[in-house]
Amino acid sequence: MITRHQTKMVLSLQKRKVREESSLFVIEGDKLVREYIMTGNRVTLLAGKPEWINGEPEMVISGADEVVTVTYDDLRHISSLKTPHNVLAVAAMKKQPYNDEILKGALTLVLEYVQDPGNLGTIVRIAAWFGIRNIICSPDCVDFYNPKVIQASMGAFIHVMVHYQPLEPLLSKAQANGLNVFGATMNGRSVYESPLGSEGLILLGNESKGISDGLLCFVTEQITIPGPEKPLAGIESLNVSMAAAIICSEFVRRKQV
Amino acid sequence: MITRHQTKMVLSLQKRKVREESSLFVIEGDKLVREYIMTGNRVTLLAGKPEWINGEPEMVISGADEVVTVTYDDLRHISSLKTPHNVLAVAAMKKQPYNDEILKGALTLVLEYVQDPGNLGTIVRIAAWFGIRNIICSPDCVDFYNPKVIQASMGAFIHVMVHYQPLEPLLSKAQANGLNVFGATMNGRSVYESPLGSEGLILLGNESKGISDGLLCFVTEQITIPGPEKPLAGIESLNVSMAAAIICSEFVRRKQV
Repeated sequence: MITRHQTKMVLSLQKRKVREESSLFVIEGDKLVREYIMTGNRVTLLAGKPEWINGEPEMVISGADEVVTVTYDDLRHISSLKTPHNVLAVAAMKKQPYNDEILKGALTLVLEYVQDPGNLGTIVRIAAWFGIRNIICSPDCVDFYNPKVIQASMGAFIHVMVHYQPLEPLLSKAQANGLNVFGATMNGRSVYESPLGSEGLILLGNESKGISDGLLCFVTEQITIPGPEKPLAGIESLNVSMAAAIICSEFVRRKQV
Repeated sequence: MITRHQTKMVLSLQKRKVREESSLFVIEGDKLVREYIMTGNRVTLLAGKPEWINGEPEMVISGADEVVTVTYDDLRHISSLKTPHNVLAVAAMKKQPYNDEILKGALTLVLEYVQDPGNLGTIVRIAAWFGIRNIICSPDCVDFYNPKVIQASMGAFIHVMVHYQPLEPLLSKAQANGLNVFGATMNGRSVYESPLGSEGLILLGNESKGISDGLLCFVTEQITIPGPEKPLAGIESLNVSMAAAIICSEFVRRKQV
């Protein structure tokens, strides 16, 4: 049985401030929880329906410090989803201090003020698919541990490290160290024709404002996904997560050619 | 002032059955409604806050058969969104009989049982961006005129025709007529290495099941977006709309090379 204290704790983790203070976050759903534990991670609390808990292999259940049974109504109460899954877990964030070294010899996504949790989750999924290990977010981006981000990432959150860093000093230093900073803009060179490479930063801007002028000056190559020949009303740009998918795909394609 | 009859009518259009019987659908939001009218379309009803109606150019207002003022509470009541916009319009669907001729000399997206309205809306947006004029949906796909599809398409719904057709006879005929049927699967040839072209059908399957066996036999070329070298838990595939973005991008890139 879940205690009142645990119920309160799980609910409080819907707030970013509480997540940051406690370094805990929530994972919802059979598949996500199972994969999280099966890939070698522990959870502090596993709250599942009795039939779910009884049906899981010992390996999953033993990955939790504490296991409690919950009813459907309990789950509906503590879940951030409209329709709850059979299980929900609380886990400790993996804190890994940021180090410039991770940028060397790799492609890294850099996100400025991306606000929509669905977009960040989708971008995490794209990064995992294309072998990008690190994403750097400006501090005003949506929280990686937001339940909607975790949900939208579909398990990719297990494989990608998301760092929150002020972008100006980071890009300035990267540029000084000779790293390319590719910026997705509306008037750069076609991404299909730009020189790319297997190292560098790929900078994507806010959903409606794009990359700010304050960061644009660090961009060494502006890249653009060519759109319709004649501009069409209502289609000024692609969504940031679609742009990420297409740009990452093109980087990976070039590496393979 | 909006009448009770109009309120009831707008609300009833949240149901697919009513939309199909009446051939009417709802467009929500300042930008979408304005663009819809400004691109030469008429709406049968425009329900907006007085300040919105007073602030719009005559050209927009005269694009409506009937204009009514509504309060915020009215809008919240009739809107399909949690947070309503300033205006909502009812418009007649554009019915265009399907004709095989549209497939010739063009790229066309074909969707089998795509269920998520956000995915269909995103795919419509991708199609518009890459100059794909037609999408063919299996009859069991989510309804194009679902308010969430219209919303997610961000105005692209104005520029792309979506047809609902049984896919078996359509693909069978296309194949017989010598058209390529490219199918996005998990074990085809890399999309970066497949012979593509500027004509043919690009078939994408259901979010969790992919392309059914019943349709796979019409596929002339299976294409795959290469993923991580070692399979990663939780990342079995890309979302259908991301796959659409990457595949369409690659087709367009080849045309330009």
